[in-house]
Amino acid sequence: MPFDAAARINHDRFRATFEALTKSGATPGGLNRPCLSKAHLEARSDFCDLARHGGFDVSVDGAGNHSAILRCARDNAPTLLLGSHLDSVPNGGRYDGTLGIAAAFETLQSITESDLTPDVHLEVIDFTDEEGTWVSLMGSRAATGQLTKRDLDNPRGHLAEFDEALATANLTREGILGAARTDEDFVAYLEVHIEQGTRLSDAGLDIGVVSGMVGIRMYLVTFRGRADHAGTSSMDDRLDAAQGAAAFCLAVRRTVMERFPDCRANVGRMTVTPGAFNIVPESVMLYLEHRSENRTRALKLEEALRSEALNAADAFGLSVEIEFLEEVHPAQMDDSICRAVESSADSLSLAHCRLPSLAGHDAQSMAQICPAGLLFVPSVGGFSHSSREFTEWSDCINGANTLLRTVVTLLSAT
Amino acid sequence: MPFDAAARINHDRFRATFEALTKSGATPGGLNRPCLSKAHLEARSDFCDLARHGGFDVSVDGAGNHSAILRCARDNAPTLLLGSHLDSVPNGGRYDGTLGIAAAFETLQSITESDLTPDVHLEVIDFTDEEGTWVSLMGSRAATGQLTKRDLDNPRGHLAEFDEALATANLTREGILGAARTDEDFVAYLEVHIEQGTRLSDAGLDIGVVSGMVGIRMYLVTFRGRADHAGTSSMDDRLDAAQGAAAFCLAVRRTVMERFPDCRANVGRMTVTPGAFNIVPESVMLYLEHRSENRTRALKLEEALRSEALNAADAFGLSVEIEFLEEVHPAQMDDSICRAVESSADSLSLAHCRLPSLAGHDAQSMAQICPAGLLFVPSVGGFSHSSREFTEWSDCINGANTLLRTVVTLLSAT
Repeated sequence: MPFDAAARINHDRFRATFEALTKSGATPGGLNRPCLSKAHLEARSDFCDLARHGGFDVSVDGAGNHSAILRCARDNAPTLLLGSHLDSVPNGGRYDGTLGIAAAFETLQSITESDLTPDVHLEVIDFTDEEGTWVSLMGSRAATGQLTKRDLDNPRGHLAEFDEALATANLTREGILGAARTDEDFVAYLEVHIEQGTRLSDAGLDIGVVSGMVGIRMYLVTFRGRADHAGTSSMDDRLDAAQGAAAFCLAVRRTVMERFPDCRANVGRMTVTPGAFNIVPESVMLYLEHRSENRTRALKLEEALRSEALNAADAFGLSVEIEFLEEVHPAQMDDSICRAVESSADSLSLAHCRLPSLAGHDAQSMAQICPAGLLFVPSVGGFSHSSREFTEWSDCINGANTLLRTVVTLLSAT
Repeated sequence: MPFDAAARINHDRFRATFEALTKSGATPGGLNRPCLSKAHLEARSDFCDLARHGGFDVSVDGAGNHSAILRCARDNAPTLLLGSHLDSVPNGGRYDGTLGIAAAFETLQSITESDLTPDVHLEVIDFTDEEGTWVSLMGSRAATGQLTKRDLDNPRGHLAEFDEALATANLTREGILGAARTDEDFVAYLEVHIEQGTRLSDAGLDIGVVSGMVGIRMYLVTFRGRADHAGTSSMDDRLDAAQGAAAFCLAVRRTVMERFPDCRANVGRMTVTPGAFNIVPESVMLYLEHRSENRTRALKLEEALRSEALNAADAFGLSVEIEFLEEVHPAQMDDSICRAVESSADSLSLAHCRLPSLAGHDAQSMAQICPAGLLFVPSVGGFSHSSREFTEWSDCINGANTLLRTVVTLLSAT
């Protein structure tokens, strides 16, 4: 039987790879690997060790994206790219990103051992800062030429801390902007990821074939009042910024649930200044994001939230400033890639469906410069960005096998 | 004319002292001198320089309280203590605490230059951490033997940071607990402070003679839900800790205004964990304090706020934990000292009234071991714990002159 019909990953090696890549930054049940943290850089070093041990070329670009490459004989051949990310949100789960890297790496190793002689370069890429500790999808947006100087001048952390973190990884903002690979030829980009929701498990399905990703818009919302002594100033006279922030935080959830059930929103942080027991809050800064599949709806929601912020400020005599930070545009996955994933799943007798992704992924950056595909495996309970995140190992194997079959299919077609 | 009838401070020297003591940690219009910060330690060093230059003994006790002492001939004579504090809240004002030290120091200098030969020791004391960066009224509670090991084991900052800060000032927790001066004999404790409210200016008065201080109770209130991905988890399914925290924050203000108009409360900080745009908040910790002149009312308000916290948690499927941190008991000032302040103000043709203090002060610690008196000067606009804090210099002079007269009166009586 030729390899392409019977292709299966090596279970033990896949497991060992996954364990090796989830060692650094391990927490009880999860991972704590914010981008460019010590634990994140250690995980990348583990990735390089695995790649060298597997006999692959190791390459690091100006954005810090790490690659393990299996080169074909033809120098100017196009590249079939498989990827995901090794960074995590603070106190995140083990599977988000790392499963995709492990599955891609196992696919590379399985191809190496097969009787196939690819006529394209095969590359596994670990993108920098998918989770946006500093800049959302930074590595993949850099690789696809979608990052601007403004994006890098306004990281979520303070700029000085960002530059310091870059320096520890021998990176610079100039280097990141120079990392675009838009002049290269890519066959396709493929990624395996956990669903981070319960649609697959609710429907009893094995594989989700992602049709496209929601867009995300992010803001800093700052309510400003006046600092006062919390004992001597009367309750009536206060301009308490925390009151406006609290009212707005409740209004965000209410607005989405009542008027925008097709969208989602989150207030993920509130920073109170000066922040002492005995001082009436002078200002509160909120981290706000919302997501929609449809950009028109996203802009309507933004309008509604701006109006809620003004109402909350007015109610407590405050001012409010809404700073739009960044946008991740909705993106479509490639239909022919989707069909290749579906036929691969069929050949493995895995049940699948198409579905949109409610989270952002590096595949949506890559979709701007080549055909891209993303496949989901089920998340138990739908928990995500949490140590409760979990995927059955059998489902991880299904995802890796489907990826391998899809790669074999694409290689046969080139 | 004998000194006691004409006693007046030296305006130029008083101003120079005030300027010298507000140099370190200066911000536009205010001071940033959290206890044991570099700026705070520098201010204390400036205080020592002034004291040595004035020819006074300098002494630092185990709690870091700094004193300038004018000793009388009699070794075992009692001490007449004048004091306040040089620390500030983050980004606080110039007058809170520092005015009291400057007025006390000027009083000491004026006495030195007079024809009086006090038969008691005169001591100006700068208490550590009046503002409670670590532990409320730490220095004065230590000096009066009211501090427990538990208080020091639970500072508001993390214990490790507290120990580190103490080390930079050559202090230890053991040393603080050993700083009690309960075996000493004190004639009285006197303090000048800004009102931090508008009662004096509203009534057109020059001096407030404080009858007593409100009690303060402080808590950490933690709402706990579940961290989830802010895109993939549905709005319905979330256990968003920020929603409970926001609802509670609004309820605190409403409860006090509607049902406890004689009390005051503040939510001064909200810390969201993990604190990222794309993670539904797992937990939010709030800093809560409330103040009442009457302890029974304080306990009734606590009961009402506990019930509001449970309601807020229930409404969003969260749990809530309320940790009682510390209490500052209400305290009475000494009536004979109040009368001495009033006659001093009368002799200077200053209009005065008695009034309770809505803020805590070191005088309330001192009231536990000796007759204590506190006098207020007007605050323009009532702003406090803010760089907007301001007191007319003529009112500062009135406060210092009233303090000097009161000291002279007490010295004549001993």
